[in-house]
Amino acid sequence: MKGYFITFEGVEGAGKSTQAKLLYQYLIDNGKDVVLTKEPGGTKTGQKIRQILLEKTDEIFPPVAELMLYEADRNFHIHNLIKPSLQQGKYIICDRFTDSTLAYQGYARGLDINLIKQLNEIATEGIKPDITFLIDIPVEEGLKRIRQTRQADRIEDEDIQFHKRLREGFLKIAENEKDRIVVLDGMESPENIFAKIIEILKNRNII
Amino acid sequence: MKGYFITFEGVEGAGKSTQAKLLYQYLIDNGKDVVLTKEPGGTKTGQKIRQILLEKTDEIFPPVAELMLYEADRNFHIHNLIKPSLQQGKYIICDRFTDSTLAYQGYARGLDINLIKQLNEIATEGIKPDITFLIDIPVEEGLKRIRQTRQADRIEDEDIQFHKRLREGFLKIAENEKDRIVVLDGMESPENIFAKIIEILKNRNII
Repeated sequence: MKGYFITFEGVEGAGKSTQAKLLYQYLIDNGKDVVLTKEPGGTKTGQKIRQILLEKTDEIFPPVAELMLYEADRNFHIHNLIKPSLQQGKYIICDRFTDSTLAYQGYARGLDINLIKQLNEIATEGIKPDITFLIDIPVEEGLKRIRQTRQADRIEDEDIQFHKRLREGFLKIAENEKDRIVVLDGMESPENIFAKIIEILKNRNII
Repeated sequence: MKGYFITFEGVEGAGKSTQAKLLYQYLIDNGKDVVLTKEPGGTKTGQKIRQILLEKTDEIFPPVAELMLYEADRNFHIHNLIKPSLQQGKYIICDRFTDSTLAYQGYARGLDINLIKQLNEIATEGIKPDITFLIDIPVEEGLKRIRQTRQADRIEDEDIQFHKRLREGFLKIAENEKDRIVVLDGMESPENIFAKIIEILKNRNII
């Protein structure tokens, strides 16, 4: 692949989306060809899947169905946007990707980690991020930030233990993939976090 | 499980839905507690997934995403309707189930058969039909019947080779599971087919 694939991960309210947008603007300002996208919902069909995933419902929402919906969304995203953009040499910045599925459906919901790894591999056709920034904050802080700005969705609405397993899950994933995943302290100011991101991307010759 | 789980399978236009409805009415008339349902779309969330699956779109609709959407729909169906109904001792009549996924996404689309079997097992939590009626007709005949009544959806709109692989797939699946799957000749009259269904269900002490 000629392009670069950069993902942002973290618990709710960590500041991923803010950093993804700052990086997008920075690369645009530097004349790069960049796509800013997210999961779930990076395609038109994905937007419909996203709605199913995040809306509250009075039906049982089983974890396996949730996993399959995330992987369907991802497979649409890979075929319609990520793969073609990378082939064209673009930068792709993606807010959440495979690590979120491993953390949420695996470590937090308790589905089999190997099943999720297998489905991630199938849905992505083996495409992996060149680098992933995991923005880590205490879950209480992240949830506080979200609740100040908007109504919680179906997943943000899970109990505090869920979010704690999630944070631990992300840190375990980062521990297992030290080369790809860079952990950043989300309690620092957005400006400081962003400066570190730029420094790391330059050191790795990605920008 | 105290109830009975009866599924109908076949290519487009084979007459599955007609037979499923006839059987539903027959069991109701005989005082049974019966649920008539279908895949995709047997639950409220499943209806939203069904819409994504059948609507035409200008995006690439990758086979893996299609498979994941069917399995998500199935897992909702199992948890919200099929399992609870069987536990309550009801008859469940379902228009399409796991064999359709194996025939469509496996034999017709070419996805790995073992992957589909694995995901079927996970999505159903191992729940299998007590009996399956495969209504077999030449694909030209089935498509002719559909086109007389309505506009073809995204899947019915596939080329004739797709539908031929589908029919062959269904027949292979039936060959491999002779105890569960009964093949019926869809060129016979609906009345004759229905009489055979009732006879077989009585012989097997299902009704």
